[in-house]
Amino acid sequence: MGGAVSMVILLILLLNIAGICNGGVTSDYVRKPEASVDMPIDAFPPPSGYNAPEQVHITQGDHSGRSVIISWVTPLEQYPNLVKYWEAKCPIKHKFKAQSRPTIYKYYNYISGYIHHATINGLKYNTKYFYELGSGTGTRRFWFTTPPEVGPDVPYTFGIMGDLGQTYASNTTFEHYVSNQNGQAVLFVGDLSYADHYAFHDNVRWDTWGRFVEKSTAYQPWIWTAGNHELDYAPEIGENVPFKPYMHRYHVPYRASHSTSPLWYSIKRASTYIIVLSSYSAYGKYTPQYEWLQNELPKVNRAETPWLIVLLHSPWYNSNGYHYMEGESMRVMFEPWFVDHKVDIVLAGHVHSYERSERVSNVQYNITNGLSSPVKNHSAPVYITIGDGGNIEGIANRFIEPQPSYSAYREASFGHAILDIKNRTHAHFTWHRNHDSEPVAADSLWMFNRYWNPQEENN
Amino acid sequence: MGGAVSMVILLILLLNIAGICNGGVTSDYVRKPEASVDMPIDAFPPPSGYNAPEQVHITQGDHSGRSVIISWVTPLEQYPNLVKYWEAKCPIKHKFKAQSRPTIYKYYNYISGYIHHATINGLKYNTKYFYELGSGTGTRRFWFTTPPEVGPDVPYTFGIMGDLGQTYASNTTFEHYVSNQNGQAVLFVGDLSYADHYAFHDNVRWDTWGRFVEKSTAYQPWIWTAGNHELDYAPEIGENVPFKPYMHRYHVPYRASHSTSPLWYSIKRASTYIIVLSSYSAYGKYTPQYEWLQNELPKVNRAETPWLIVLLHSPWYNSNGYHYMEGESMRVMFEPWFVDHKVDIVLAGHVHSYERSERVSNVQYNITNGLSSPVKNHSAPVYITIGDGGNIEGIANRFIEPQPSYSAYREASFGHAILDIKNRTHAHFTWHRNHDSEPVAADSLWMFNRYWNPQEENN
Repeated sequence: MGGAVSMVILLILLLNIAGICNGGVTSDYVRKPEASVDMPIDAFPPPSGYNAPEQVHITQGDHSGRSVIISWVTPLEQYPNLVKYWEAKCPIKHKFKAQSRPTIYKYYNYISGYIHHATINGLKYNTKYFYELGSGTGTRRFWFTTPPEVGPDVPYTFGIMGDLGQTYASNTTFEHYVSNQNGQAVLFVGDLSYADHYAFHDNVRWDTWGRFVEKSTAYQPWIWTAGNHELDYAPEIGENVPFKPYMHRYHVPYRASHSTSPLWYSIKRASTYIIVLSSYSAYGKYTPQYEWLQNELPKVNRAETPWLIVLLHSPWYNSNGYHYMEGESMRVMFEPWFVDHKVDIVLAGHVHSYERSERVSNVQYNITNGLSSPVKNHSAPVYITIGDGGNIEGIANRFIEPQPSYSAYREASFGHAILDIKNRTHAHFTWHRNHDSEPVAADSLWMFNRYWNPQEENN
Repeated sequence: MGGAVSMVILLILLLNIAGICNGGVTSDYVRKPEASVDMPIDAFPPPSGYNAPEQVHITQGDHSGRSVIISWVTPLEQYPNLVKYWEAKCPIKHKFKAQSRPTIYKYYNYISGYIHHATINGLKYNTKYFYELGSGTGTRRFWFTTPPEVGPDVPYTFGIMGDLGQTYASNTTFEHYVSNQNGQAVLFVGDLSYADHYAFHDNVRWDTWGRFVEKSTAYQPWIWTAGNHELDYAPEIGENVPFKPYMHRYHVPYRASHSTSPLWYSIKRASTYIIVLSSYSAYGKYTPQYEWLQNELPKVNRAETPWLIVLLHSPWYNSNGYHYMEGESMRVMFEPWFVDHKVDIVLAGHVHSYERSERVSNVQYNITNGLSSPVKNHSAPVYITIGDGGNIEGIANRFIEPQPSYSAYREASFGHAILDIKNRTHAHFTWHRNHDSEPVAADSLWMFNRYWNPQEENN
């Protein structure tokens, strides 16, 4: 039997080498080695004025986009805990008000400011609103635009970022995205502040991060995913509750999708159905996340929201030596569902580089049949790894050679992406490396919707 | 390339067929089809006497066996919350006392009795103790024997049960085990009461189960593992906290092994090191369970505790159609560690039949190489599936054909097992089907310790 085994191994190796001929690209561009250095705390001064609201961020507040959760921190007092808001085109006297219930949390030797979350409901679609926080010298005003009503051919443009942190490189990534006037909302695939990089997970770095990104997060919704740097699990200093700072600071509308945890939930926005999953929660059969996702996927009506997009942190298809196969255990659990339900795109972070997969699946395996290599599958998602925000941990530049056949494009650079949905059949995806100016796309793909237009794309 | 693919598949199929020749046994014995019927609630009357302590159970209370957690329920009042205990050979006047802090919990429309847990410390090894709970007419007295001091050649005998429930078949399994005078402690692999089988997870069935097993659990420690029927996750009735009844009722010494959750922990007992894991908690990289296990395995000193045994609920190697491959996602995560650290035995439940594996591993896979069939490995554990306690859900009698080469023995019967550790090199494992009288072993194996005696066993 030994001879037969050798022959199988040989053939498998030959097949893998053959796989390269499919034409996956490893980019020639190599980011210059540079130290990853956090911007100093001084770079993020709090706003002026007494007890001025800071770290302002908004996210979708219901399932279909007529509600917004507005979050902010007041350093000194919990009052005022009001948000005033009004339609931009209406006179300011027609103000509405909503209240927050401020909370604080302790983490080792850190005590947070008063963290506010206020949900404002019953908004009109496709409408610009102003909102105002604070009072007296600390008053601050912002605005946002609600999304168009949910529908199958509604164009919408998302920015995509992950693993951002707060280094000088993070700043480049962020400023590039902000300079793009088309982005209407951000799909953020986890790892926000990297506060856990500091001694005792210095939560001041959660505050500075909130200030860093405010100029976008206060004006357009960021859709949040929890990454491993949100765990802040540190039994050595008595901090045993996973996700404590993150869950206090970033609220999401999980109840609207009948989830029982803010770590997994869904929203509809324009022509998309977005499912957020947690790589660091239980996903075994019978667990809350598993039960929720099993019930959730059949609810997606592609006639209403053609584009089914999943966000999670730890990638399932990644050919970088960093974090190689860390997503495998979750892939084993959920990949058949993604294929059955024709998920269009899976966005992940975690690996500090960029990679785009072919449409592949790996779902035939049954323990004994050895059928465990990815194969092309027109019902499978494109897997995009975009943990290239530019955080303190630096670049992941150790790609596995030869490039596996599931990998269509990979590059060890920092950057962000834009997903420009045109209608029910077409979307244009572009990835922008920080080295170039924002309008340049280093990688791009016309994506075809898996439900309405399940043809092969031209890489 | 298509031809090459076919050839590989053909060869793999041939290898699998060849695998059968290794001689895995599917037992000829077939359990007569019988309805699974729970014993009536009347079968479990509370003890007599005012506010008499009931549902008494003990488990190890520290890491090395000099402590016991005594747990009980008082239906009417929380006082007395005392346990009195004394060495059996000493006069009763030398009594010690320990206090419980009673808790209650609500579950939908159910309110529990006062649940007591008292930890008694500083016990002598290998010593019989009496203990007394309650007062007045409700006084009840029990006893236990502490284990011998931890050491490499200390003989010790464990009973092994799983998925017990409270049917007439459960009773047969349980009574068979109790009739064996050699069992000193029970390794229980999860799924206790099956209360969740009833409307609104009728928690009265948690109480009846506690009474059902008391005649063993009050006298020898049962080492608890959480199964899926401990989840009691029922968002439809507002019960969103996984493991709520279980964690209120069954305390384990998790802090002694630096765990931060009662769902995973370890103990040393005689010549064994026992690690309990949770199939239904997060186990992805960076999660608390993952971090704990990664730190835990290198701590095992085989010169002190030669026998390394892991308990978990959802089996990794199971060739039954029921729950097939449900443990796969956890296997993917942890199997390489089990092989590296030469785990001797992995005990699982979940599947309502009995199966014993060859010593196999499946750890060569790297996404593209197709090397994902189990192979013989002398550093690998024997995997035993023993979810055959006989609960309300009935037998799992749909084995996958042909029997995979990793499966050494399988049989769709109810039963229990005995692990009789002789010294650092040898242990005798026997499985007892309920149909036979307890002394009959339907399957047996002399197990050789992986650290001290890593030879191939004779099936």
